[in-house]
Amino acid sequence: MRELLAERIPGQSLDAPLYTDPDMFPHDIEGIFGRHWFFAATVAEIPEPGDYVTIDVGRFSLIVMHGDDEEISVLHNVCRHRGARVLQDARGSTGNLVCPYHSWTYASDGRLLHAAGGGPDFDPGCLGLRRAHCQVVSGLIFVCLAQEPPEDFDAVMEMVEPYFAPHEMTSTKVAVRQDLVENGNWKLTMENNRECYHCDGHPELACSLFPTFGMTEEQVPEHHRDDWVRMLSAQGRLEERCERYGLPYRLIEEVASREAGVRIERIAMDGEGESFSASGHRLSQKLLGDLPDFRLGDLTLHLQPNCWFHFLSDHIVTFAVFPIDVDRTLVRTTWLVADDAVEGKDYYPDSLAHVWRETNLQDAAFVEMTHRGVSDPAYVPGRYMPSEHLVDGFLTWWTARMQEHLG
Amino acid sequence: MRELLAERIPGQSLDAPLYTDPDMFPHDIEGIFGRHWFFAATVAEIPEPGDYVTIDVGRFSLIVMHGDDEEISVLHNVCRHRGARVLQDARGSTGNLVCPYHSWTYASDGRLLHAAGGGPDFDPGCLGLRRAHCQVVSGLIFVCLAQEPPEDFDAVMEMVEPYFAPHEMTSTKVAVRQDLVENGNWKLTMENNRECYHCDGHPELACSLFPTFGMTEEQVPEHHRDDWVRMLSAQGRLEERCERYGLPYRLIEEVASREAGVRIERIAMDGEGESFSASGHRLSQKLLGDLPDFRLGDLTLHLQPNCWFHFLSDHIVTFAVFPIDVDRTLVRTTWLVADDAVEGKDYYPDSLAHVWRETNLQDAAFVEMTHRGVSDPAYVPGRYMPSEHLVDGFLTWWTARMQEHLG
Amino acid sequence: MRELLAERIPGQSLDAPLYTDPDMFPHDIEGIFGRHWFFAATVAEIPEPGDYVTIDVGRFSLIVMHGDDEEISVLHNVCRHRGARVLQDARGSTGNLVCPYHSWTYASDGRLLHAAGGGPDFDPGCLGLRRAHCQVVSGLIFVCLAQEPPEDFDAVMEMVEPYFAPHEMTSTKVAVRQDLVENGNWKLTMENNRECYHCDGHPELACSLFPTFGMTEEQVPEHHRDDWVRMLSAQGRLEERCERYGLPYRLIEEVASREAGVRIERIAMDGEGESFSASGHRLSQKLLGDLPDFRLGDLTLHLQPNCWFHFLSDHIVTFAVFPIDVDRTLVRTTWLVADDAVEGKDYYPDSLAHVWRETNLQDAAFVEMTHRGVSDPAYVPGRYMPSEHLVDGFLTWWTARMQEHLG
Repeated sequence: MRELLAERIPGQSLDAPLYTDPDMFPHDIEGIFGRHWFFAATVAEIPEPGDYVTIDVGRFSLIVMHGDDEEISVLHNVCRHRGARVLQDARGSTGNLVCPYHSWTYASDGRLLHAAGGGPDFDPGCLGLRRAHCQVVSGLIFVCLAQEPPEDFDAVMEMVEPYFAPHEMTSTKVAVRQDLVENGNWKLTMENNRECYHCDGHPELACSLFPTFGMTEEQVPEHHRDDWVRMLSAQGRLEERCERYGLPYRLIEEVASREAGVRIERIAMDGEGESFSASGHRLSQKLLGDLPDFRLGDLTLHLQPNCWFHFLSDHIVTFAVFPIDVDRTLVRTTWLVADDAVEGKDYYPDSLAHVWRETNLQDAAFVEMTHRGVSDPAYVPGRYMPSEHLVDGFLTWWTARMQEHLG
Repeated sequence: MRELLAERIPGQSLDAPLYTDPDMFPHDIEGIFGRHWFFAATVAEIPEPGDYVTIDVGRFSLIVMHGDDEEISVLHNVCRHRGARVLQDARGSTGNLVCPYHSWTYASDGRLLHAAGGGPDFDPGCLGLRRAHCQVVSGLIFVCLAQEPPEDFDAVMEMVEPYFAPHEMTSTKVAVRQDLVENGNWKLTMENNRECYHCDGHPELACSLFPTFGMTEEQVPEHHRDDWVRMLSAQGRLEERCERYGLPYRLIEEVASREAGVRIERIAMDGEGESFSASGHRLSQKLLGDLPDFRLGDLTLHLQPNCWFHFLSDHIVTFAVFPIDVDRTLVRTTWLVADDAVEGKDYYPDSLAHVWRETNLQDAAFVEMTHRGVSDPAYVPGRYMPSEHLVDGFLTWWTARMQEHLG
Repeated sequence: MRELLAERIPGQSLDAPLYTDPDMFPHDIEGIFGRHWFFAATVAEIPEPGDYVTIDVGRFSLIVMHGDDEEISVLHNVCRHRGARVLQDARGSTGNLVCPYHSWTYASDGRLLHAAGGGPDFDPGCLGLRRAHCQVVSGLIFVCLAQEPPEDFDAVMEMVEPYFAPHEMTSTKVAVRQDLVENGNWKLTMENNRECYHCDGHPELACSLFPTFGMTEEQVPEHHRDDWVRMLSAQGRLEERCERYGLPYRLIEEVASREAGVRIERIAMDGEGESFSASGHRLSQKLLGDLPDFRLGDLTLHLQPNCWFHFLSDHIVTFAVFPIDVDRTLVRTTWLVADDAVEGKDYYPDSLAHVWRETNLQDAAFVEMTHRGVSDPAYVPGRYMPSEHLVDGFLTWWTARMQEHLG
C-alpha cells in the first residue's frame, strides 16, 4: 500500500487496489476516519434531550446522543461488560442507555450507572461507554475518534462558520431523509461528488445550475458563451445582495493544502435563483433564520473527508458519507427546513427532496459502474480533465493523510 | 493467535480476533471439533435401520447412520471417487448409500460395495467412506474426528450416565425439532448458554426457574430473600424424593479442570416443579422410562465443547451447537417424549416446545448483538460477573485446548 | 500452489485448494484465461453491425462487437477516463460506444472519438478502449488476452475447421440461449463435461447416445453387447455416408499433448440418428448450409480450456464456460438453427433445447455437490476410472499450463 501511495501520479485516478482491495479498507478506516474530524449528523436530527442517532463507519458503531444536560455526546456503541451493541436502532429516543443483554445501564454521557450482581469489589467508575471527541458548529456535529484530534479543524471552522451561521441550522427541523447504499468504494463516492463534468447525467439538477457550472472562462465552449454571460450577470447581482446584507460569499478553496481540507463559495443559481426546483423558485415558504431574501443562491460547502452541504435561503441539504465495506458506502442525505415551516402548507417533502433524491440515485449508478470497472484487471488509472481538479484535490489530500498514517 | 491465547486474562472475555477473525475459524474446527468428542445427535432421531441424519461442522459433513446391524456409524459424507456429497438431505432413510454422481454404492458402515467400470485392477477394499469415531451413551451419540480420541471422555461418561440413564432416552421419540442459525461465533453461543445473568430477557423460561437461579447465597439481593427460602425448601423436597427413588442429583462441576469438561446437577423447578410450562405442570402425560414421579425437577447436563441437555420426567430437550462459519452457528434443539406418548392426546408439540423455542430466539438476538459488538474496533474484553463463572470456565477450557492444539 | 501442482498424481482428481482456495482463482484467470485462446461467442449472436455481447471472465469484462466495417472486435469494457463500465448490458446494439459517466465516445473498434473539455493538450490518440486478440473461425469467435497469443491455435484450427465448416455456422441464427450459474469451480464444470460415466443421471440425453457411449470394447459389460454391435453398425453406415459426401469424421484427440488441446469426432447417434430428440428425429426441418443429409450423427468438438460443441445436421449447440469466482461458474449454452428456419414451423424452441437444457440443470447439481464435497477437510483426491480418461486429459493440460504460468 505504501508503495502504491508513493507511486501515485498527481492528476490521475488511483491504482485499483487502493479502491478495491479488502486489505486496504481497514487502513482507510483507521487512517482517515480514525484520525480526522468527520461529519456525523446535525442537531436537527436529535432535537430533544434523549434523542440519538447511531452511525456505522466500517465496523465502528457510534451513538450521537443529545444528553439531558443539552450537551451532545458521541459514544462507542459497545457495552463494557461483554461487548454487546447497546442500541440496535438507527435513531430513537431514550432516557438512560440500557444494554439489552444484561441490563447494564449508562447515563446519556456514557457513565455506567448500574450493573446488577457485581459484588462488593465491583467498581463502575472506569466502565463507562467509551467516548469520542465531538464538536458542534452552528448545528453541524463533527466527530473525531483519535486520542488527540488534529488542530487544523478549529481554524477552518472559524473561517467558514460565518458563511453558514446566518442560515441558522439550529432553528431547523428534518423534513426528509434518504439513506442510500452505493455499491462502490467510499472514495469513488467522494470523487463523484467533487466534479460536475458528469452533470449531463443529472437532468433534474441541471435546471438549477448554469450550463457553465464548474468551468473556467477558457473552458466554456462556443455554444455556451451566452450562458456564461448570463451567469456572470446573475453572480454579480448575487454578490451585490450579499454585500448589502453582510453575507460572506467569496470562494475559499483549500481542499488539499491543509489538514482540514475545505471549499466554500456562494454561487448564483439559474432560473429564479432561489432553490433546487425546476424553475429555481423556493421550495419552502419560510426563510431560514433571519435571512433577508430568498435570492441568495447556493452556499456550497465541502469538507474532507466525508461531506458536502448546500445552504439555501429556504432549506439546507446535508450529505454524509459512511464507508460500510471496501465496496459498499452509505450516503445519508438530510433535508432541513425552518422549524416553523408547516408540512403540506409551507413545503411538500416530495417536491423539496425531488432534485437531490433523483441525483443521488443517478450518482449511485455512476459509482457502481466505476467500482466494477476499476476492479477489472484491464483498468489503468486515467487522467482527470481540467474541470475535475477538485477530484484530484480530494485524492491529493487523501494520499497525504494515508502517508502520514502509514508512516 | 498463539500470542492472543497466551495473553488471555482469566475472568475476561476474549480478544476480538479470537471471536471474529476468519483465519481463526479453521483453528477452532481443527483444534476443538477435530480433536475432541462432541455431541452429534440422539438415537431417537434415527430409530430404524437405514435412518440417518447429516450434520455440518464447518466444512465437514458427517453422516450419522443407523446401520442394518443396529450399529450406529459416523461416516464422512464425501465420495471416495471424485469427492461428491453422497447424501444431500439433512435427514432421511436409505438402504445402501448411493452417490448420485456416478452411483458408487456404499454399505451403511461405509464399505464400498459397487463401482461400475473399474476394470480388473480396481480394488474397492480401501475405498470405503472414511469413518469417524462414535460412542453411544444411553441414547446420546458422540463423535470424535481425531485419529486417537482423548481418553478422559469414558471416565466422565461413567460419572454422568447414572444420572440420565433412568430417563431412558432409548425409549423416546422426536416430538419437535428446531434448527436455528445464529449470526455469531459459536463460542458466543456457548458463552450465552453458560450463564443466566441475562435471564431477565427470557420471560417464558423465567416461570420455571427460581428467581435466584444461578446465584450463591451471598449474591441473592434483598428482595429475593423469600424466593431463596422457597427454593431451598423445594430443593430439599426434591432431594428427599431422589434419595427415596435412588436417583443421583448432586452437583458435579468440572467444566475446565478436565479434558472432557462437564457439569451435571438435578435442581428443583419453580411452580409445580414438573416441567417447562408456565405453571410448572407436566407437558407430556407419559413418564419417561420407569420414572416413578413427575416431580423430579430439571436434570441439567453441560458438556464441552458444544452441548447442553435438560432431562425432565416427561420430556428431554437436547441442544447441539455446530459452527457453520466464523460468524454463523447452527443451534439444533430436539424435544423428545416417551415413545408411547400420543400426539394431540398426551402432548401438544407447540406447548411442549414453547418455552425453549422462544428462549432460543431471544438467545439468537443476544448472540448476534454481541458478535456485532465484539467486531467493533472499540471493543475491549470485559470482566465476567460472579454469576458468569461457568462462562469463564468454558473459555478456560477452550483456551487450554487451543493451546494444546497450536503447541 | 506450485507445490500442489508439482505433487499432482496423474490419473487423480486435484488437491482441494486447487479447486476451492480463493487465492487460487486469480492464478486460474491469469494463467489460463489471461494467456490462452478461449471461446467467447458466435457471430450468430451478433449478426448486424453494431451488435455486441459482453462476457465476464473473473473480474474481466469484455465487449465482443460487430463493427461497422463487418470486423469483429474484442474490447475491454473499461473507460480510459475513470474506469467506468462502458456497457452495462449482456447484449445489445449500439452505434458508437458512449460511456454513461462522462460521455466519452468510442468507435466500434475502440478508438476514442470524442471527450469533452479536454483542453488543447488533450490527445485522444492513445486513449482508445484496450483491445484483445480475436479470431473468427467459421463463425466461432475466440479471444486471447495475452500480449502474444500462443501459436499452436492456428494449427489446431486448420485441422478441425474442415470438420465443422460444412455446418455453415455463419448462416445460422440464435434459436435459444441459456445462461446457467453453477455453484462450483470452473474446472469441476469442465471435468463434468469430459466424461459420460455419470450419464445415467441424464435420462433425456441418454436417448440419443448409444448405451456404450464413451466405452472401449473391453469396457462394454455383457448386457450391453447387443448395443455395442448396433453402435458399430450405425457408425459404419455413418462413415460410409461421410465418405460419400466428403465429410471428415475421424477422431482427432490431442487434449493434453499440445497447447491448444483439442478433440473432435463424428459419431453415430442412437434411434433415427439425426438429432438430440427422444426418437433421434430431426428438431429443425432445415438442413444447415449445403449439408446433403439429416443422418450425419453428432460432430462433437472439445477445446481446452472452456468449451464444447455439438454440430448436427439440423442445429448446432455451443457451450462456453466463464469462471465468475472460485465457486461460481457461468455456463452459456446457445442453440443455432439455419437462418431461414421459421420458428413455430421448422422448429420449436422448447423442443429444440429440451435435452441439453435438462442435461445442463442435472450437470449443475453434480458440479455443486462435488464442489461442496471437495471443500470438505475429509476429501482426498480420487482415482479416475478408465472411462474418465478425458477428465484426466483436461487436468494434465491444465496442470502443464499452470506450471508454465507460475514458472
